[in-house]
Amino acid sequence: MANAFDGSDIDLLDEDVRDLIRRREAVLAPSYRLFYRHPVVAARGSGVWLYDADGNRYLDAYNNVPAVGHSHPHVQRLVTEQLGVVNTHTRYLTEPVIDYSERLLALFPAELNKVVYTCTGSEAVDLALRVARYETGARGVVCTAHAYHGTTAAAAAVSPSLGPNNVIGDDVILVTAPDAEHDDPATMAELFAARVRSAIAELHRRGVGFAGMIVDSILSSDGVQSDPEGFLAPAVHAVHEAGGLWIADEVQPGFGRLGSTWWGFQRHGIEPDLVVLGKPMGNGIPIGALVGRDGVMAKFGRDIRYFNTFGGNPVSIAAATAVLDVIEEEALLDNVQRSGQRLLEGLREIAGRHDGVGGVRGRGLFLAMEFVDGDEADAATASRVVNELRERRILISASGPHENVLKIRPPLPFTTEHADQLLGELDDILAHVPR
Amino acid sequence: MANAFDGSDIDLLDEDVRDLIRRREAVLAPSYRLFYRHPVVAARGSGVWLYDADGNRYLDAYNNVPAVGHSHPHVQRLVTEQLGVVNTHTRYLTEPVIDYSERLLALFPAELNKVVYTCTGSEAVDLALRVARYETGARGVVCTAHAYHGTTAAAAAVSPSLGPNNVIGDDVILVTAPDAEHDDPATMAELFAARVRSAIAELHRRGVGFAGMIVDSILSSDGVQSDPEGFLAPAVHAVHEAGGLWIADEVQPGFGRLGSTWWGFQRHGIEPDLVVLGKPMGNGIPIGALVGRDGVMAKFGRDIRYFNTFGGNPVSIAAATAVLDVIEEEALLDNVQRSGQRLLEGLREIAGRHDGVGGVRGRGLFLAMEFVDGDEADAATASRVVNELRERRILISASGPHENVLKIRPPLPFTTEHADQLLGELDDILAHVPR
Repeated sequence: MANAFDGSDIDLLDEDVRDLIRRREAVLAPSYRLFYRHPVVAARGSGVWLYDADGNRYLDAYNNVPAVGHSHPHVQRLVTEQLGVVNTHTRYLTEPVIDYSERLLALFPAELNKVVYTCTGSEAVDLALRVARYETGARGVVCTAHAYHGTTAAAAAVSPSLGPNNVIGDDVILVTAPDAEHDDPATMAELFAARVRSAIAELHRRGVGFAGMIVDSILSSDGVQSDPEGFLAPAVHAVHEAGGLWIADEVQPGFGRLGSTWWGFQRHGIEPDLVVLGKPMGNGIPIGALVGRDGVMAKFGRDIRYFNTFGGNPVSIAAATAVLDVIEEEALLDNVQRSGQRLLEGLREIAGRHDGVGGVRGRGLFLAMEFVDGDEADAATASRVVNELRERRILISASGPHENVLKIRPPLPFTTEHADQLLGELDDILAHVPR
Repeated sequence: MANAFDGSDIDLLDEDVRDLIRRREAVLAPSYRLFYRHPVVAARGSGVWLYDADGNRYLDAYNNVPAVGHSHPHVQRLVTEQLGVVNTHTRYLTEPVIDYSERLLALFPAELNKVVYTCTGSEAVDLALRVARYETGARGVVCTAHAYHGTTAAAAAVSPSLGPNNVIGDDVILVTAPDAEHDDPATMAELFAARVRSAIAELHRRGVGFAGMIVDSILSSDGVQSDPEGFLAPAVHAVHEAGGLWIADEVQPGFGRLGSTWWGFQRHGIEPDLVVLGKPMGNGIPIGALVGRDGVMAKFGRDIRYFNTFGGNPVSIAAATAVLDVIEEEALLDNVQRSGQRLLEGLREIAGRHDGVGGVRGRGLFLAMEFVDGDEADAATASRVVNELRERRILISASGPHENVLKIRPPLPFTTEHADQLLGELDDILAHVPR
């Protein structure tokens, strides 16, 4: 995993941080990881700021879950109110889940007219795969070669980015994602569609059939692939032609992160059959969802049913309602476009002045800067930059197939001033930090 | 599904309820179900009471998620406070998750010394299966014939109670659960263990090996099988002898519901390798967990890692902390024993006075009454009783392999007076409702 604390510098840490780490290791399973050579204590948060236990302030340019800002008072208010009213499941009639569903679906194209609530994006991915397989009667699924779609067994099986020990079964075929730095923009979309067609043919040869394809609409873990707009369309056409479903994973790009549209798939002019929502949906209160065409969800719903005990509970729905309120009331999509544009231009300008930047990509408040050493990916520089920014109290991380891509993905109220602070420090680091 | 609204009586409902149902069907996917011939609007809740939109009060004798009572002010307080401080993930150091983990693990035998947080019991089951399969290098799992363990693809694959269209793969073998009404108590434990041994042998014949067995420690969906204490022990021995892991599903029996112990497995004197927690853990704020021996979790943790974005976030942890506070401060385990004993005795007394009761079972506040017609299961009477109780504003449901078992499972603050109210109405219904 990029940017994981490996324990080697533990003796250099403050005693209270060391103590927390040791207490943590004593009780949390070894599957847990911490960020940074020098882990960050998240003691308090407000807006785009996190504070450690000593009151030091960190500019959060990484966290996409507290999308409307850390500790937003409107989220706190609606959740608190609902906790004093009722919090139960969807086998009773509760009005909040209906009100919210009407509002959420109004943000989608008309044919995406049904929703199921889960508690996480992983659960929604898992359900999307169950629905696609049941609807088509086939098992085979296509995903991208460095995809990340979640942590359940079925979601992990379409998440090759979890590493070589995470087994990808014979019913999943990986296709190389489009790559804006190396592909010819004139042909990348058709070449990607051709790879998808080959993968579908291979699934048929294996005898597992073709259920569908799942793609993160901004290809986050494939290094953030945002442009040119529309490059996913031919692949979607290939999937539909083969009788499969297109599952748009909007856990990362969704809820306005890309600024110009509510959902990443809209930038590609495509019509997904199923859409997966998660992370920012409740600003940190667990909630996810699967949105889809009723035709696609009917057979599964009739024959198998699905009941997620906490899914769509009124308290999680209150948090999700507050998120929509804030995005609209604070005009966050406009802010995302403005700050995203500043960041994109600033990153490009920095890239032009320093060696070793292989590319700058992204849209809205999901941006990437790639480091290379000649033709090779340069993960070491990405790691040094991430850790040096952390020492300067700015939080980002690294990602991508070769871990050489800076992942900049702040809460949506991140302003152009915050962008300038990040750009200034990054510029200085690239000028002074030895490579 | 037992006790599902089927729409046939919709014209008999009040106009506002009809309107809610129609709005709901327009936006929620067809996988959703409602309870009761006459669905209940859950507009408000407090303690063991739910209220509909007209202010009518319902005695809640069913809901195990609001374990410390609906809208408990202490849960509201701690969640609200934490929402104003910070809510982020476990790749930063956050102290609440460490404090809570220390407290939670202190409630377990010493060898169960590591925890991973999820957002639901389903995710925890799914992770337990991933860990067991990775640790053993085998795929085969044994579960009971009418088990329910959750909604992810992997959890549904060990949940035959989801019905005939829910495919159970070739790597899962079902064994008939012990049945207190029909088995000889002197031999039921050994016969169950013999069935488990046969299932393990069959998994080996299929070439998938044996990873482990998952059992709900109160066998909720197998009709609630609580006694005699210890009947699971020989099966656990058989599983360990075969090199498999025992996964105790404590989503329903855990957190004191059985009164005498915090966890259902303790009543059987067994040593599980992995324990799954869910539903009552955060009183409705989504949180689940997997507790296990560090040895069992080490290889998976080292090779694959596991990151659940919302899992162990400080707000869910605040809710879980509040639940432990309330269980201790309000001495709810004592209350569970007291009210559970009253319910059990009252149900037995009622069973002795009415025809057609095949058995009364359960422990603490998880009780079951089974209806039979001669040698046949009598689901119709169970359904009539459930719906007539609902008309009298008492909420329970039905369950079991033949849907003929009343499931009585109230919030833990349910008192002996509440028990008497339920018992009185049930007695009257059995005396007067035509069969």
